[in-house]
Amino acid sequence: MNDANYGDSMYLKVLGCGSALPKPGHQHSSQLLRLRDKVYMIDCGEGTQMQLLRFGGSWANLHRIFITHLHGDHCLGLPGLLSSMSMSGLDHPVHIYGPEGIEAYVHFIVETFCRDDAERIIPHQIDHRQVQRVYEDHSLVVTAFPLKHRVPCIGYRFDEKPKPRHIDREMCDFYQIPIAYFGLLKQGADFQQEDGTVIPNHKVTKSPRAPFSFAYCSDTAYYPPIVETIKGVDLLYHETTFGADKMDRAVATLHSTTTDAAHIAQQAEVGHLLIGHYSARYATPELVEELLSEVKSLFPRSFAAEDGLTLDFQKLRTL
Amino acid sequence: MNDANYGDSMYLKVLGCGSALPKPGHQHSSQLLRLRDKVYMIDCGEGTQMQLLRFGGSWANLHRIFITHLHGDHCLGLPGLLSSMSMSGLDHPVHIYGPEGIEAYVHFIVETFCRDDAERIIPHQIDHRQVQRVYEDHSLVVTAFPLKHRVPCIGYRFDEKPKPRHIDREMCDFYQIPIAYFGLLKQGADFQQEDGTVIPNHKVTKSPRAPFSFAYCSDTAYYPPIVETIKGVDLLYHETTFGADKMDRAVATLHSTTTDAAHIAQQAEVGHLLIGHYSARYATPELVEELLSEVKSLFPRSFAAEDGLTLDFQKLRTL
Repeated sequence: MNDANYGDSMYLKVLGCGSALPKPGHQHSSQLLRLRDKVYMIDCGEGTQMQLLRFGGSWANLHRIFITHLHGDHCLGLPGLLSSMSMSGLDHPVHIYGPEGIEAYVHFIVETFCRDDAERIIPHQIDHRQVQRVYEDHSLVVTAFPLKHRVPCIGYRFDEKPKPRHIDREMCDFYQIPIAYFGLLKQGADFQQEDGTVIPNHKVTKSPRAPFSFAYCSDTAYYPPIVETIKGVDLLYHETTFGADKMDRAVATLHSTTTDAAHIAQQAEVGHLLIGHYSARYATPELVEELLSEVKSLFPRSFAAEDGLTLDFQKLRTL
Repeated sequence: MNDANYGDSMYLKVLGCGSALPKPGHQHSSQLLRLRDKVYMIDCGEGTQMQLLRFGGSWANLHRIFITHLHGDHCLGLPGLLSSMSMSGLDHPVHIYGPEGIEAYVHFIVETFCRDDAERIIPHQIDHRQVQRVYEDHSLVVTAFPLKHRVPCIGYRFDEKPKPRHIDREMCDFYQIPIAYFGLLKQGADFQQEDGTVIPNHKVTKSPRAPFSFAYCSDTAYYPPIVETIKGVDLLYHETTFGADKMDRAVATLHSTTTDAAHIAQQAEVGHLLIGHYSARYATPELVEELLSEVKSLFPRSFAAEDGLTLDFQKLRTL
């Protein structure tokens, strides 16, 4: 997941998978999503810049940071990360998305730690109560949606845009289609020969792979209204702060259990489920393994997050 | 340096010894000073709470935090540390000392992350332009003094108070001194017998060990006015952001070189010198070893900080 070796896949890297009280191996929440030459960060808990260094990442292509909510374990790494980026010579804008309060928080950071880059560090305050498209470029769409937590909290869905169709050069030559027309073929257009014969697109192009998609749901109580929005993603990150036997704690704190996450994954018919945001009580690999077993008994295609874990979306499809 | 096994010595633990851009093994600035049952923190860079966990420390006895200046690498760990302390059930006041701006910063933290403990988290704004006693209890005195940096910046000197003299029980029995009088003997009083004979204190008591002392000077340019204030401490922590060949960078950024730190240690006639706050360019143990060699060529009783290093003041005296 270094800058140099990205390919056609999408990658997710977990920088921190702990909850409020961090433990070694379970630092505060942060993840990186890489699609081609761009990196998107979701959440930025304390220590995120160190985790980035530790796991061989870089902020060179980091243009957008999506914050779910303003609890410390999800946003306290922002001042340090932004001031280090600023000190290292920020040559591009950094956009920071988040709920109510994000503007004031980013302004405070900029005023206090990186005033020189005030114009390059741009907050985007999102209404946490509605599903909405918050970012779009030529390759990606990001949709924000409400989660259910003790403070305004936003989930994010990342959808790669459909890729252009692949030209079947041999068939194009056979039908004598001029190269100038290839751009339209890639977009799905048919080709009309001089005698009026129509060559349907599928005869001279091949389907690209289906676009990748990812959804991030943390922190949240069990909240079925999200199912419709996250439907069918390749990978769902859903918090499991507690094991199945701690339902009462989950309800009281508006977090989820392993059972909750598995049920959401089932209903949303996702490709794979990634669990994390573990309570400090699950401090060892053995205890995390128990959480994963609980999840897998209901939704077998599941993984447990650990700091430094990288998932390759292309490979997920082969599992 | 766990809570359970402190003795009569004083201990310093380095939690982070890097500078603005952290590197693995050189996290942002923070140190812990332990004297008997109390722990004092100096600086609190991002990730300090994780370093505390990592190196087996705890915040159970942390009542006072001394911030040198409001650059991110010295204070961005405060929000996370304070909110974790607050979440874990803060049962004692935490006093936070620092220069101009510390009050606003602490208020921001309390309002945003730990409003329930607003009364227990207390900022103390110090005038950074003068030498002054900022804290005193039965065992310790803390003196603040001006450093020379790009923003208001404070050095701190920690002086253990003189310990009471030890009763020489055999000699007390010989002179038939009543036990009720031992308290006064410990304070240095002579004893007058019924016939008027005065038994001088030194005949019936023994000298305690000399009090320990420590001074923390970071960040600062080479600044000889500090010499008088830090005179004769057992241990001086003085930043060496740069090697001797980077004098121009040190001057430009108001930091110190290895040569600067060694000269201050010489002039202040300190027991030992501890260097740290390394620029990101000194990222390997070999490069730090080179910095230490430069220092030692001028001031042999020197150590190089590394994250997790613990120094025992009692042992330092035997070196």
